[in-house]
Amino acid sequence: MLLENSEKTPLGQIGEAKLIELIREKVNLQHPSSIFGIGDDAALIQPKNMEQVITTDLLTEGVHFDLSYSPIKHLGYKAVVVNLSDIAAMGAKPTQILLSLALPPKFTLEAYEELIAGVLLACNIYKVDLVGGDTSPSLQHLHLNLTAIGEVEPGKAIRQNTAKANEIICVSGSLGAAFAGFLLLDREKEVFKANPEVQPDLEEFPFLLEKQLKPEARFDVLGHLKEANIPVSAMTDVSDGLASDLLRLAKASKLGVRLDAERIPIDQEVYKLAETMKLDPFMLALNGGEDYELLFTVPVSHAQALESIPDLHIIGFTTNQENNYHMVDSSGKAHPITAGGWDGFTES
Amino acid sequence: MLLENSEKTPLGQIGEAKLIELIREKVNLQHPSSIFGIGDDAALIQPKNMEQVITTDLLTEGVHFDLSYSPIKHLGYKAVVVNLSDIAAMGAKPTQILLSLALPPKFTLEAYEELIAGVLLACNIYKVDLVGGDTSPSLQHLHLNLTAIGEVEPGKAIRQNTAKANEIICVSGSLGAAFAGFLLLDREKEVFKANPEVQPDLEEFPFLLEKQLKPEARFDVLGHLKEANIPVSAMTDVSDGLASDLLRLAKASKLGVRLDAERIPIDQEVYKLAETMKLDPFMLALNGGEDYELLFTVPVSHAQALESIPDLHIIGFTTNQENNYHMVDSSGKAHPITAGGWDGFTES
Repeated sequence: MLLENSEKTPLGQIGEAKLIELIREKVNLQHPSSIFGIGDDAALIQPKNMEQVITTDLLTEGVHFDLSYSPIKHLGYKAVVVNLSDIAAMGAKPTQILLSLALPPKFTLEAYEELIAGVLLACNIYKVDLVGGDTSPSLQHLHLNLTAIGEVEPGKAIRQNTAKANEIICVSGSLGAAFAGFLLLDREKEVFKANPEVQPDLEEFPFLLEKQLKPEARFDVLGHLKEANIPVSAMTDVSDGLASDLLRLAKASKLGVRLDAERIPIDQEVYKLAETMKLDPFMLALNGGEDYELLFTVPVSHAQALESIPDLHIIGFTTNQENNYHMVDSSGKAHPITAGGWDGFTES
Repeated sequence: MLLENSEKTPLGQIGEAKLIELIREKVNLQHPSSIFGIGDDAALIQPKNMEQVITTDLLTEGVHFDLSYSPIKHLGYKAVVVNLSDIAAMGAKPTQILLSLALPPKFTLEAYEELIAGVLLACNIYKVDLVGGDTSPSLQHLHLNLTAIGEVEPGKAIRQNTAKANEIICVSGSLGAAFAGFLLLDREKEVFKANPEVQPDLEEFPFLLEKQLKPEARFDVLGHLKEANIPVSAMTDVSDGLASDLLRLAKASKLGVRLDAERIPIDQEVYKLAETMKLDPFMLALNGGEDYELLFTVPVSHAQALESIPDLHIIGFTTNQENNYHMVDSSGKAHPITAGGWDGFTES
């Protein structure tokens, strides 16, 4: 999709006005709160009698994604989803997004259209309106910035600092698969670089690839919790890794946490890859990041109701011992949990 | 400010959590519509009984700014202002911003703090709340993405597609100075590269430098128009250049325009630099861009009231001849106007 193939169209032949028009003609606003979108100095929205949540996230080439193995359409899709996951983590319904692109010279019109197709696919699936954005050249690398807006009934936003002691800690889906998917893709890239004739060995791990390349935001879990009338005390999404994100929630709520290692949901593919790469699957689950699962606390009195929610796991409980974070293994031994998750600055 | 000096602190020693905390501790939310800001998965806001305008803008190193002559604090300030200018162009009051930064390895903690100081200075001056953002490493270049939100009474947002025929076209301030400032800085950079002992010759052009490096958004003009009860039919801000921005407004409104060349406000410093660089000052004013002045139309019946507004210029009028754009010179000759303004893609 990049400028290796001379039949592709360089963006310099197109111009910014046309690039914007290519998006505008594909967008149909769906939300009553979207009054108008692309085409003026700013978009106009009106969330009637609702509070708004708003978040922004920047994805940079070589840090958050590698164009050599990220299909460009998936990248556009994922850029939307990682922002919507933050909206889900507030217990809100997503309504609008804005998209900024810094496009490097290697980027073609065809790649741009793939990227936009991925963004608009996510918009359609999650029913959000693309109401604005910016398109700019970049000297060398692709950067995408998404801003996402959501609506929530007044007073109903779910914060991180409102967990209570002795509540159940829940997480949706499973953990570590997205990071395992990254490790897998990175390994196959190195193999390919060493010998381009070797076919990548990816077929055994469809779930890891799906979680890494095309994650989803868990509004389905929010919906089930609401239907079952389960009150969520505090919530976040797992983006930096279970350990980092849970400790952030616990610190904000001035609590301790006690996890049960055996209850942490880890997919069989994670175990399998961890074995072949001689890694600890628990470290992948604790520190992997990019899971985009929902992590939240619920009063103990609702423990039974939680059993009716699909794809949900009780992994531990909060304590009133502030700054005390432990995971108990199958032998009953407690291990301290530290925030070892992803930090692009200190890892670089 | 960058990593030339070994006494500076690399960002890798700091980590993302601390970088965010450095911003969070300096932010005090001022707007009643800002319920909470930095520190959760998303910010929470509630614009009571108001419509919201929202815009986003990405500034990329080497395209929108050159770190070799942009003071970093000014860059942070300007990044906010260019977004607020879009809010002003909708006739709205700015309320919140979100800031995403992609920081290259050469960037130090000291440079980061300067950048944030510039952003927060603009927040204080324009009374907007920094409610969220994202901080990420970048492989090579600095990118800043700002999202700005503003409030406007329902039905009062001023669009580009609502101008009528035979209205007065007005512009605030003067045009071409920001682009002249860029040409000046670029010239002195080349002189410096050829001979580092030559001192830059900038003292003669303080206004050009100010307009290029530290522009302002013209909420003052909006205020004067409101006080004088002057109805504005359609409005935009001059960011790509008078010709491009005016033609966009005229096209959206399905009108023609007729400008009076002698009435286009051009500062003496622009004339002076144009003379030394053998450039046409009218071309700088028409196609320069980055002026961030307000450009709008007003019914003829309010012509006299406009005289009371400081720093405002009547430069022509709209016509019902769609797609017919002319500028009349001092001899009475009409020249076609084309959108020759800035387009980072086609110019690169």
